[in-house]
Amino acid sequence: MTEATAAGRKVTTSDRIKDLILSDGLRPGDLLPTEGELCNRLGVSRSNVREAIRKLSTLDIVDVRHGHGTYVGEMSLDALVEALVFRGVLSPGDDLDPLRDVVDVRKALDHGMADQIVSALQGTSNPDLHALVDEMTALAADGKTFPQQDRAFHTGLLAQLGNSLVGQLVAAFWDVHTAVLPKLNVAVAADLEQTAKSHGLMLDAAESGDAEAFRDAITAHYEPIMRALEEN
Amino acid sequence: MTEATAAGRKVTTSDRIKDLILSDGLRPGDLLPTEGELCNRLGVSRSNVREAIRKLSTLDIVDVRHGHGTYVGEMSLDALVEALVFRGVLSPGDDLDPLRDVVDVRKALDHGMADQIVSALQGTSNPDLHALVDEMTALAADGKTFPQQDRAFHTGLLAQLGNSLVGQLVAAFWDVHTAVLPKLNVAVAADLEQTAKSHGLMLDAAESGDAEAFRDAITAHYEPIMRALEEN
Repeated sequence: MTEATAAGRKVTTSDRIKDLILSDGLRPGDLLPTEGELCNRLGVSRSNVREAIRKLSTLDIVDVRHGHGTYVGEMSLDALVEALVFRGVLSPGDDLDPLRDVVDVRKALDHGMADQIVSALQGTSNPDLHALVDEMTALAADGKTFPQQDRAFHTGLLAQLGNSLVGQLVAAFWDVHTAVLPKLNVAVAADLEQTAKSHGLMLDAAESGDAEAFRDAITAHYEPIMRALEEN
Repeated sequence: MTEATAAGRKVTTSDRIKDLILSDGLRPGDLLPTEGELCNRLGVSRSNVREAIRKLSTLDIVDVRHGHGTYVGEMSLDALVEALVFRGVLSPGDDLDPLRDVVDVRKALDHGMADQIVSALQGTSNPDLHALVDEMTALAADGKTFPQQDRAFHTGLLAQLGNSLVGQLVAAFWDVHTAVLPKLNVAVAADLEQTAKSHGLMLDAAESGDAEAFRDAITAHYEPIMRALEEN
């Protein structure tokens, strides 16, 4: 039993529950020992175990299903999204820096993954992604926004990579972006048609293996929001 | 008082404490109302408030200083790091996918921010960063690792950008990377000298405004770890 973490801080009950998950070889979705068993095995009080389980539940390391038991969680990035959304809306007044930061990170991830996405999609055909582009284009023509399709497109593109972390991160920052945007008094000159169209250009470029056109389409994709942020 | 979040889920006491932080105009470091005052203002029980405060504390949205009070937190990414480190070590056996995912994200962020870093550093001189490169080079020559200097270099580069989110993210993934690495049975062919040297190449390229050389140096920087991950 480790007595200190790598960072040198005190080992908490939640650290010890994590060690127990590892040593018992449990996987996401597996049932954890009961509260009573955890108290016995770790030699700590019930209130200690409860507090640790609550913390691990906030981090989605465990999943408390009331009336059923506590399971190993999916380790989603929901906690990150919650913290970042709040950080985004906490800025004084109409300070847009947090939103700018999030858009910057989204852009950096898209650009940074560009070569891998183009390699993965070159020579493939992706009717589902094309259908999303068509939906976005039709909605934009009606002056309507298309957040669902937009999110599905970005996560769908990254799903080709087999890197679940980057897919979750991009989805997380997308969620922060869309949650923060309406809370700020930013008049988004939402150039819906350009945004819809640039998704199509990204997809066409990736399928035809043209990394440079793909990068240009990413830049075009972020132009409306970048412009709105600069004007405000 | 909102009755449902944008996502449509039930408004929790922790959501209402976040609303209160916003409506009271509190900022990181400001003191929150006492537990008793929160109970009164929100009309909920003390145990409700306590559980909510614990959750917000896990997310670093509040900071509980025992004996002093509860303050608005710094919204660090510590919770993200904890969840991702655990995800990284939870993989069955010697599965290196989670570490590969983290290295991929680090690389993507570095490449994605490259243009901005080169623009920010062009024509500047950065003695502190050069000193870190010298330290890394000296340690590598002695066959020693240099995690502290490495982390300080990467966060120092990004500190030039004025985007605190990307700096924190890069630091967070760096921490995940170094925490997960020793827990996996991966024989890292740690080409220390190449890693040390490529930091110097990155810095020289950025200061001379050469974006292409900067990108090449990023790729060289990740080569030893990428090779080790492929061989295992």
